Amino acid sequence: MSEYRPVDPRESPRFAGIKTFMRLPHIKTTKGVDIAIVGVPFDTGASYRVGARFGPEAIRSVSALLRHHNEVLDVSIFDHCSVVDYGDLPVNPGYIEDSYKMIEDGIQPILDGDVIPILLGGDHSVTLPELRAMAKKHGTVAIIHFDSHSDTGDKRFGRKFTHGTPFRRAVEEELIMVENSIQVGMRGSIYSRDSLNDARKLGFDLITTVEVQKQGIDTLIQRIHDRVGDVKAFVSFDIDFVDPAYAPGTGTPEVGGFTSSEALRIVRGLKGLNLIGFDLVEVLPQYDPSQITALLAANIVYEFMSLIALRKKLESAE
Amino acid sequence: MSEYRPVDPRESPRFAGIKTFMRLPHIKTTKGVDIAIVGVPFDTGASYRVGARFGPEAIRSVSALLRHHNEVLDVSIFDHCSVVDYGDLPVNPGYIEDSYKMIEDGIQPILDGDVIPILLGGDHSVTLPELRAMAKKHGTVAIIHFDSHSDTGDKRFGRKFTHGTPFRRAVEEELIMVENSIQVGMRGSIYSRDSLNDARKLGFDLITTVEVQKQGIDTLIQRIHDRVGDVKAFVSFDIDFVDPAYAPGTGTPEVGGFTSSEALRIVRGLKGLNLIGFDLVEVLPQYDPSQITALLAANIVYEFMSLIALRKKLESAE
Amino acid sequence: MSEYRPVDPRESPRFAGIKTFMRLPHIKTTKGVDIAIVGVPFDTGASYRVGARFGPEAIRSVSALLRHHNEVLDVSIFDHCSVVDYGDLPVNPGYIEDSYKMIEDGIQPILDGDVIPILLGGDHSVTLPELRAMAKKHGTVAIIHFDSHSDTGDKRFGRKFTHGTPFRRAVEEELIMVENSIQVGMRGSIYSRDSLNDARKLGFDLITTVEVQKQGIDTLIQRIHDRVGDVKAFVSFDIDFVDPAYAPGTGTPEVGGFTSSEALRIVRGLKGLNLIGFDLVEVLPQYDPSQITALLAANIVYEFMSLIALRKKLESAE
Amino acid sequence: MSEYRPVDPRESPRFAGIKTFMRLPHIKTTKGVDIAIVGVPFDTGASYRVGARFGPEAIRSVSALLRHHNEVLDVSIFDHCSVVDYGDLPVNPGYIEDSYKMIEDGIQPILDGDVIPILLGGDHSVTLPELRAMAKKHGTVAIIHFDSHSDTGDKRFGRKFTHGTPFRRAVEEELIMVENSIQVGMRGSIYSRDSLNDARKLGFDLITTVEVQKQGIDTLIQRIHDRVGDVKAFVSFDIDFVDPAYAPGTGTPEVGGFTSSEALRIVRGLKGLNLIGFDLVEVLPQYDPSQITALLAANIVYEFMSLIALRKKLESAE
Amino acid sequence: MSEYRPVDPRESPRFAGIKTFMRLPHIKTTKGVDIAIVGVPFDTGASYRVGARFGPEAIRSVSALLRHHNEVLDVSIFDHCSVVDYGDLPVNPGYIEDSYKMIEDGIQPILDGDVIPILLGGDHSVTLPELRAMAKKHGTVAIIHFDSHSDTGDKRFGRKFTHGTPFRRAVEEELIMVENSIQVGMRGSIYSRDSLNDARKLGFDLITTVEVQKQGIDTLIQRIHDRVGDVKAFVSFDIDFVDPAYAPGTGTPEVGGFTSSEALRIVRGLKGLNLIGFDLVEVLPQYDPSQITALLAANIVYEFMSLIALRKKLESAE
Amino acid sequence: MSEYRPVDPRESPRFAGIKTFMRLPHIKTTKGVDIAIVGVPFDTGASYRVGARFGPEAIRSVSALLRHHNEVLDVSIFDHCSVVDYGDLPVNPGYIEDSYKMIEDGIQPILDGDVIPILLGGDHSVTLPELRAMAKKHGTVAIIHFDSHSDTGDKRFGRKFTHGTPFRRAVEEELIMVENSIQVGMRGSIYSRDSLNDARKLGFDLITTVEVQKQGIDTLIQRIHDRVGDVKAFVSFDIDFVDPAYAPGTGTPEVGGFTSSEALRIVRGLKGLNLIGFDLVEVLPQYDPSQITALLAANIVYEFMSLIALRKKLESAE
Repeated sequence: MSEYRPVDPRESPRFAGIKTFMRLPHIKTTKGVDIAIVGVPFDTGASYRVGARFGPEAIRSVSALLRHHNEVLDVSIFDHCSVVDYGDLPVNPGYIEDSYKMIEDGIQPILDGDVIPILLGGDHSVTLPELRAMAKKHGTVAIIHFDSHSDTGDKRFGRKFTHGTPFRRAVEEELIMVENSIQVGMRGSIYSRDSLNDARKLGFDLITTVEVQKQGIDTLIQRIHDRVGDVKAFVSFDIDFVDPAYAPGTGTPEVGGFTSSEALRIVRGLKGLNLIGFDLVEVLPQYDPSQITALLAANIVYEFMSLIALRKKLESAE
Repeated sequence: MSEYRPVDPRESPRFAGIKTFMRLPHIKTTKGVDIAIVGVPFDTGASYRVGARFGPEAIRSVSALLRHHNEVLDVSIFDHCSVVDYGDLPVNPGYIEDSYKMIEDGIQPILDGDVIPILLGGDHSVTLPELRAMAKKHGTVAIIHFDSHSDTGDKRFGRKFTHGTPFRRAVEEELIMVENSIQVGMRGSIYSRDSLNDARKLGFDLITTVEVQKQGIDTLIQRIHDRVGDVKAFVSFDIDFVDPAYAPGTGTPEVGGFTSSEALRIVRGLKGLNLIGFDLVEVLPQYDPSQITALLAANIVYEFMSLIALRKKLESAE
Repeated sequence: MSEYRPVDPRESPRFAGIKTFMRLPHIKTTKGVDIAIVGVPFDTGASYRVGARFGPEAIRSVSALLRHHNEVLDVSIFDHCSVVDYGDLPVNPGYIEDSYKMIEDGIQPILDGDVIPILLGGDHSVTLPELRAMAKKHGTVAIIHFDSHSDTGDKRFGRKFTHGTPFRRAVEEELIMVENSIQVGMRGSIYSRDSLNDARKLGFDLITTVEVQKQGIDTLIQRIHDRVGDVKAFVSFDIDFVDPAYAPGTGTPEVGGFTSSEALRIVRGLKGLNLIGFDLVEVLPQYDPSQITALLAANIVYEFMSLIALRKKLESAE
Repeated sequence: MSEYRPVDPRESPRFAGIKTFMRLPHIKTTKGVDIAIVGVPFDTGASYRVGARFGPEAIRSVSALLRHHNEVLDVSIFDHCSVVDYGDLPVNPGYIEDSYKMIEDGIQPILDGDVIPILLGGDHSVTLPELRAMAKKHGTVAIIHFDSHSDTGDKRFGRKFTHGTPFRRAVEEELIMVENSIQVGMRGSIYSRDSLNDARKLGFDLITTVEVQKQGIDTLIQRIHDRVGDVKAFVSFDIDFVDPAYAPGTGTPEVGGFTSSEALRIVRGLKGLNLIGFDLVEVLPQYDPSQITALLAANIVYEFMSLIALRKKLESAE
Repeated sequence: MSEYRPVDPRESPRFAGIKTFMRLPHIKTTKGVDIAIVGVPFDTGASYRVGARFGPEAIRSVSALLRHHNEVLDVSIFDHCSVVDYGDLPVNPGYIEDSYKMIEDGIQPILDGDVIPILLGGDHSVTLPELRAMAKKHGTVAIIHFDSHSDTGDKRFGRKFTHGTPFRRAVEEELIMVENSIQVGMRGSIYSRDSLNDARKLGFDLITTVEVQKQGIDTLIQRIHDRVGDVKAFVSFDIDFVDPAYAPGTGTPEVGGFTSSEALRIVRGLKGLNLIGFDLVEVLPQYDPSQITALLAANIVYEFMSLIALRKKLESAE
Repeated sequence: MSEYRPVDPRESPRFAGIKTFMRLPHIKTTKGVDIAIVGVPFDTGASYRVGARFGPEAIRSVSALLRHHNEVLDVSIFDHCSVVDYGDLPVNPGYIEDSYKMIEDGIQPILDGDVIPILLGGDHSVTLPELRAMAKKHGTVAIIHFDSHSDTGDKRFGRKFTHGTPFRRAVEEELIMVENSIQVGMRGSIYSRDSLNDARKLGFDLITTVEVQKQGIDTLIQRIHDRVGDVKAFVSFDIDFVDPAYAPGTGTPEVGGFTSSEALRIVRGLKGLNLIGFDLVEVLPQYDPSQITALLAANIVYEFMSLIALRKKLESAE
């Protein structure tokens, strides 16, 4: 039995209580902790709609609907993992570089405590300081990136840091093992013929949504496993990977995307990989009147937790 | 030509008039009636979001869009069935057991008049008194239950009656032929490994959403027919069977669900069964800003009516 | 300097962090505490719209906008008071009498610790168990009741406990000093000519909205002070006291009400009274798309805190 | 005791049942009827936003909150009046002149039955056929017109019939006693300096919102009584008379308007006049997410009913 | 490089600037123009919900998200086409026949300038005057019609022109080559068994949604190409072709529809055809709180532009 | 007759056409122009809610409702002024100092052309670069600042530029004549007792909302005129000056504010002053579901234009 686990929904109604993720204890500690849920309420990097700063609150709110056992992966998360809601990292809204420093510094004690962070954005610009912190702890890591955009743009209006550039910067800063990294789900109109090839030139394996739809999800999962292998990997999931029908509450939606069933199946397909960190970004509650985007995000975070728990379960069974 | 039929949309604009279901006559009678649409505006059994008490009104409102002929099943409903909107059953909000009595008593004259009821919830707790009334009239009946949850929980906070427990209670009260009953569509996180097995131990055949997605809809339809056979069956459809993208307006949504096309195809697959009652529950209009949940619910009710009309059509053709 | 005070908005952005009231520490203690903010997420007593169970969460969320100093009353709350967010009391949704017991029991340790509770509903039915707890601690207390309804109805559908009956029950149960109690703001259509007179017959002084609008707010404030005098008083504020333009997110709104300016002025007018408890009820977030109702509620709670702090400030200055 | 009266909210919960106005009987008769609530779901005359065709449904829905006794006017409506919900008049959406004929013809049997109609729009273009029917029955009548626009425009895009022209047309068609008629509440930007003077040249007394705000409501009420005197009068109330804060759900809102308290006070000020018909127009539910506009409209209709009941009460007391 | 092209999103943030389609120049010219985006803000033909007059504005707003290169069709639109936003055609709201004349006349100079129009509705009634203009320029053309309704109704309430009748009228007026025309996607309840057959009797090839779902999209695309061949074709796309989950913001939604991926794939399947005009109709922003309907519409318009650009690219490559 | 004037709403329906302010010509020129409407879609300075970048679009959209003549001030704007919609200034989202430079540079040609700018924010941080540009052209100017906050904070999280600091910075940078400047409307909780006094120490005259409510609007208007006198003055209007009931769509709302009537009366009270520039900031459309905030903002801009036109009218009459 893990040290920290959520309030049991059978003991207290799910709408009650302070809204931490799954109503986990809100403790800023790493002691006795396997997984930390961490908010990164920063959206100054956004290029179109804004409001992802309220994303962590929205995801926490509906996460109250989640229960302890993952039936598909057959794992009871809290039998294997002690989990806390670590709260939100400090940020300075309006100032990207200040915030990058605060985010990187904020993650460090979590990693130093050998805790796996699951970070709730915030816009996608937050992944860069996350990766800086990961690299400091783990050295370069592989990236498994689910998104409708490759986010490998270069400067915009003369500036290097926006939510459209983190993965180019991560390569330039040598934070990631690009030869083991993969980008999945790109679609929609692009700036020029070179846009996706630029990502490939940086070294990423890149698969568009249309390609996944043609080849099937099993093929995709195999391709991810082949690419990543046994190296430490960080999963970055932009909610706009999913179609706007399933995730309307996001900043730069692209039609023609995945269903929630497909998204869950793909994430569950990561089982067995050596995953050392996760983020889930770009949830904008003001465009999510029925909370379905936040609910899907909470479920994907739940699958992330399940992947870790499953690995622990299997290890302890060996 | 049936005695009671809707206002013809070609004769009066669909947005006009008092909003009964399909603008059917609102008459509290069973004389000359084959099908009664009956509201059950009760939501005191809900564990998370509330507001299903406004479900019947919302479904009636958009049902004005429905027309008389079902092209897929090839049946003109009102050529074969006389249908009324019976109005809403009395309930006592805040008091489950009082309301259970009122609902059970309220249905009885409908059944005594040999009218097939299609009941619009309300939350899923209303199915228990419905089944009590059905059993009094018909003896035990088979249940065909579409839902993302099995609703076979036991007590919650020490109480037996909530929207999470009706099917366990129905088995305990010996209202249903559990060996002919089937639960379809369960998914999402569950309380413990035993949650779904508990439903199976009660005697239900239970198929999860993931299993249906693997095996296909034709297999599912065959499995339902095999299970139910010729016995009298009651259909209980929780709108959260469908994915939140298609049905955001519900109380405890679960991502990774069915599309509206799949749901319609499955319901149409019930044709030929001996269906003696229906309910459609858990529509919450306050979470349904574009009315798509209510519209889907109205269409499923429409398919229920079509199934009855089709059976009458085929019987009269013999 | 008080022991417990909020996160300083100048040190952490107001949208960040776990959403307790004003981002106060969430500690379930009474030690070193003057005021406890306490959620009572219960709405089973509601007669029309439901959803006040999400009221405490909504009020907490937007309370992040509040700052430490009350300029009009000239008091810095946390210079004089130590305040915690005590979390939510346990309730059993769907079961009023169970929940009444849980609420009464839940408040008791707060009162025993000599902490002033400010309770966030929930529907107005929660005031009865609150008053039961207050009476157990303090003996009978005066009630200052702001509302568009007098909530002194008798049974509804044969049942004694709903959100329309708590003040009749409180008189019957001899929980309150009715001769020092006052009801302010009644308006809108009523069941019969006797409805308001019934409240008066129970012993309340009752002033309608139309009367207040004629006589002016200064007169009202004087009348409240005259009525209540020096006895211990409990303030119950139903957000529907205010006009629906200012508070759309409520269950049984009545047009023709007060503005937010008027409401604040009236509440500030309570200064000097011996206030030993407060509640703020009937906030329904699903009808509050721009959060203005929750924001007004948070501000009224803020004025409640200020009234207590001001009294402490003046006492300590003597 | 009147023949037709609403379902008693103390006997059936207000959210239950088919949504007629106040849950009155829906009977298309004039026998034994004093007042008929009549929907006119027509919005083809609208110049900016559209959707008033759903106005009657929205007003009916929330009218369930109304109770039987008007405390301010001290009258129990249904002690003096028998009231039905007559349903909606037939209209042909997209065709103004067709619909004008249908509306005029539809009202005639109501007037022939000596029933006072209270008509729920629809956009303001519906007042012209209403006045045609009134004139046929009563001869010319005075108009008491509450609105932020005078609606005395001439042709628009070459056409005579829109929601901006009914009162000019009514003068031209000699349907009204313009020398006894009054327009109240005009405000906002206008097409040219002559716009309001044109209305005055047609013979109307016209008072702007700014003038009312300067002179006070008592003065306004006196001016209306002086103008109208004892002649038969028809009241036309455009919900945009009220400020958008109180009535956001309307087609051509004008800021700087009246509060709901002021509007109620003005309408109640009509007591004693010889009112033979009413309409309430321009409620657009799609712009009214919290239903406050529809609720205010329902309350104004309620005051209309009360004015009639009060006159009957006083007559019978003589 | 084309004469007229959008503001580059890499040079000016996409939320900035006057909202023309894709932030194209708003110039009412045909000189040096290949494609004109043209609004037709007319919704007087609508039978149920209204508000499509705001459709062009909503589509333009969110079209700012589109970028220059179509990755799937591999074409950079503005390398091959000069495109302008021509603004909106004049219409007379409330008057269908007047507006038909204005729309027909408004399109004529565009066609006379040999510019391909892409028209943004408006309700589907606007297609008739569009086809009148097309026929005047091109003679009869084939129609490729995507919709959940065949819109081949006859008179409604005695009138010939509504959004349910344009394609019958087009056949009667001999505007189209019906033997080369095809209607795709019909579904949902219909008025009578004959409803779809009537369309077929008029000469259309008609494929229901259920048939497409059975046969697959490749088969559909082949069938369209076989039917249309080399003749000039006009594409009319009603957004309700897509399921309400993907396009909630529409006037007469039908559940059980296509996904956005399927819709895009089908539209891209038109490549190679001789397309001389397009419309996209029935977007109602008031039912589209997250703008997903408008975004999908903008993307379909984008595919239309891409089809033209691709044809030009291939022609110039020959 | 002025050179540039809006499309006449009597000639083209108000919902039609590209949405510039009042459907004025969108021309980036100063030649023959008296007033330029200029968007400043920048919201990186916001401390709580974000989204004011979409403010200019929202205000332009609903400004279509405005007509040419101001009845209260008795001036036909376009008889005296030539007005253009200049479009939006370039900004770099996420980078305040870059954007400050772009805004300042962007305004300069407007001022150099002797055109009066009316700037549509954006958050309140944009006022600083506006004032820098004004000072470069005009030397120091008086400020008339309507707001619920004084926005004279010092650094936040170590940074000098946010939407809470522009007026302190303006004093420090010696851009304004503080001894002729006035701040009106401050209210709500504040950080410390010194917060408002700090503004006064900087030299501002500052009047709180509560003070205005006590003293009356006529007194306020006189006080503004006395303070400002004949010097050149810039008006900065934060929409949160108004109560959230009237302006829900804003970033940091404060309850207890002004009505729309009061706001209009105050703005009209500025007539006669020597006003050389204006801004209207902090409109956030995502919190404004019925567009009432944007409508009020558009009307205040309309009053600004009227003040200029009135001055020209009176000057030309001399």
